[in-house]
Amino acid sequence: MTAQRIVYTGARTLALEPAETAPPQAGQVRVDVAFTGICGTDLHIYHGDMDGRVKPPGVIGHEMSGRVAEVGPGVTDWQPGDHVTVMPLTSCGQCPACLAGHGHICHRLVFLGIDAAGSLQNSWTVPAGTLVRLPRQLPLDHAALVEPIAVAVHDVRRARIEPGEQALVVGGGPIGLLIALVARRGEADVLVVEPDPNRRAVAESLGLATLDPGAEDPAEGVALWSRGAGAAVAFEVSGAAAGVTTAVDALATRGRMVQVAIHTGPREVNLHRFFWRELTLLGARLYQRADFEQAVSLLAEGAIPAADLISRVEPLGRCSQAFHALESGAGGMKILIDCRAEGTEAR
Amino acid sequence: MTAQRIVYTGARTLALEPAETAPPQAGQVRVDVAFTGICGTDLHIYHGDMDGRVKPPGVIGHEMSGRVAEVGPGVTDWQPGDHVTVMPLTSCGQCPACLAGHGHICHRLVFLGIDAAGSLQNSWTVPAGTLVRLPRQLPLDHAALVEPIAVAVHDVRRARIEPGEQALVVGGGPIGLLIALVARRGEADVLVVEPDPNRRAVAESLGLATLDPGAEDPAEGVALWSRGAGAAVAFEVSGAAAGVTTAVDALATRGRMVQVAIHTGPREVNLHRFFWRELTLLGARLYQRADFEQAVSLLAEGAIPAADLISRVEPLGRCSQAFHALESGAGGMKILIDCRAEGTEAR
Ligand SMILES: [Zn+2]
Ligand SMILES: [Zn+2]
Ligand SMILES: [Zn+2]
Ligand SMILES: [Zn+2]
Repeated sequence: MTAQRIVYTGARTLALEPAETAPPQAGQVRVDVAFTGICGTDLHIYHGDMDGRVKPPGVIGHEMSGRVAEVGPGVTDWQPGDHVTVMPLTSCGQCPACLAGHGHICHRLVFLGIDAAGSLQNSWTVPAGTLVRLPRQLPLDHAALVEPIAVAVHDVRRARIEPGEQALVVGGGPIGLLIALVARRGEADVLVVEPDPNRRAVAESLGLATLDPGAEDPAEGVALWSRGAGAAVAFEVSGAAAGVTTAVDALATRGRMVQVAIHTGPREVNLHRFFWRELTLLGARLYQRADFEQAVSLLAEGAIPAADLISRVEPLGRCSQAFHALESGAGGMKILIDCRAEGTEAR
Repeated sequence: MTAQRIVYTGARTLALEPAETAPPQAGQVRVDVAFTGICGTDLHIYHGDMDGRVKPPGVIGHEMSGRVAEVGPGVTDWQPGDHVTVMPLTSCGQCPACLAGHGHICHRLVFLGIDAAGSLQNSWTVPAGTLVRLPRQLPLDHAALVEPIAVAVHDVRRARIEPGEQALVVGGGPIGLLIALVARRGEADVLVVEPDPNRRAVAESLGLATLDPGAEDPAEGVALWSRGAGAAVAFEVSGAAAGVTTAVDALATRGRMVQVAIHTGPREVNLHRFFWRELTLLGARLYQRADFEQAVSLLAEGAIPAADLISRVEPLGRCSQAFHALESGAGGMKILIDCRAEGTEAR
């Protein structure tokens, strides 16, 4: 059997090519990848926007599930056959962030699938410390959602949402909807602000309340929803200037805003309102191991409707088509790539 | 004896006039005011910028000390002669902020000395619930500093500073320096950023380390000071756009920025850095009773060098001159008005 992998060789180019399967070295584990989800970050890479970090040619992909194939010397916690996902971060252990216990935002963070090889291949060798155990009964296609759910779990945890609190989610893309689902699971009263009708339809199909900022002033809608008090929490997942304003204006006294989306330039922020209402802004990036483990639990408990979120599964050989679908917005919530050697068209 | 009071009658006009002394009503206490400090807020009022709230003619002043003169029906906790200060806030008890336990930022807050009569008078009648007890041994001139120290205590408490943490104070005016002193008392390692040489000199005379942003890039200075890690906490007390940038750029991973100053318009904020380093922004406004009580304790323990902070004391009849001195910057750290009936020039 010849292993295969997808290589990003430059803007808009993904090539299927044969790959050598080397035995794992000390402390490493070789994983037979089952499924890899693709997301907005992968799309940025595909567009050539992250060549400085990816350094083509490179194997991308970071939302995955699989089975342990082979363990390297010194690895005692894992056995071939174990179902696993990978928390795709390695930290330096020595920078101020690591020393303060925030290794997930290490100043020299290596993100597997961006700064180092990722999972869009049959076989992926990773440090044993990145593995996270999956229960056998969790289907491996569903388990490819663990990584983005872990992002949502982290964001909700940063907000310290309590049952009954009202949480506004500004932006109804995949991460926004996962945040909404995780917050709802925490018994928050959730409202999703999203201008795109297709995204609103997906949100509503998941039973989430939505607000169309094109049809209704978000401030008025939030006032109505919260009986004038404002939201306890607002997640800014839009990355847009208007989203920042919506989130800040929505908050109740002492409300917490979680900054999830990336804003590439500075944004105007109403700091007076932060002062006047004693608001809190919390940046939230990636996840920690506890978030990954909670994401696995939520999936295993059926708290996240994984089957409804996976809109399409493509074989490794049709990666380009999958990226085109994601790019066009036709991908729905989540497109998976079937990375199993048996499943590739090339076999 | 004829009581006297200072009345703000319109921009740049303070008039000394006789005042009637009425007995306190149920739940009220009449206080013989000893000293009243004047501050930037009073100066804003004096400039006519807050006429919408003050509604001239009005008695201003909110940083005070005094003795209970007379208690109204139903007041059992206070006796004539008790040394007191006033936490100059009354809340509605019914708005979302009050119901959530944040009465100090009530949506219908009445601030005594702005929205209702203040302390620039011999005799001031206030709700008994606003009184805060002062120990007898605390000199009443020092005690007029309780209110601004309570602001600083509140700001430091919002930041949850721990001993040994590095705290940057951006802006070395009176509140900035009090924050620096309170943070230092909490065993923080404090650095004050202030462009004005006179203010830096005051800070240095109090033993505080300073940085001149005109002479040294604050980001470089902070990197040097924190050995590359950044500050755990930054207090934005400048109200300037550059101050926001300095504070945000100064923070270590997971650092906390406390927004103390008022920004009248929106400010550009590097939200990407909040995301990337998981920073926190905390708005901080006024104080709660615990802050007032801690401010009294700090003064009583000698933890705040009150005598060094009081640069000038003027009688009630020279209020205009005191405001001119404050306006010109000649006032140093704190100007007090001696509001005692015996101390006024008019007697
Ligand atoms: Zn992703
Ligand atoms: Zn590190
Ligand atoms: Zn004041
Ligand atoms: Zn209220």
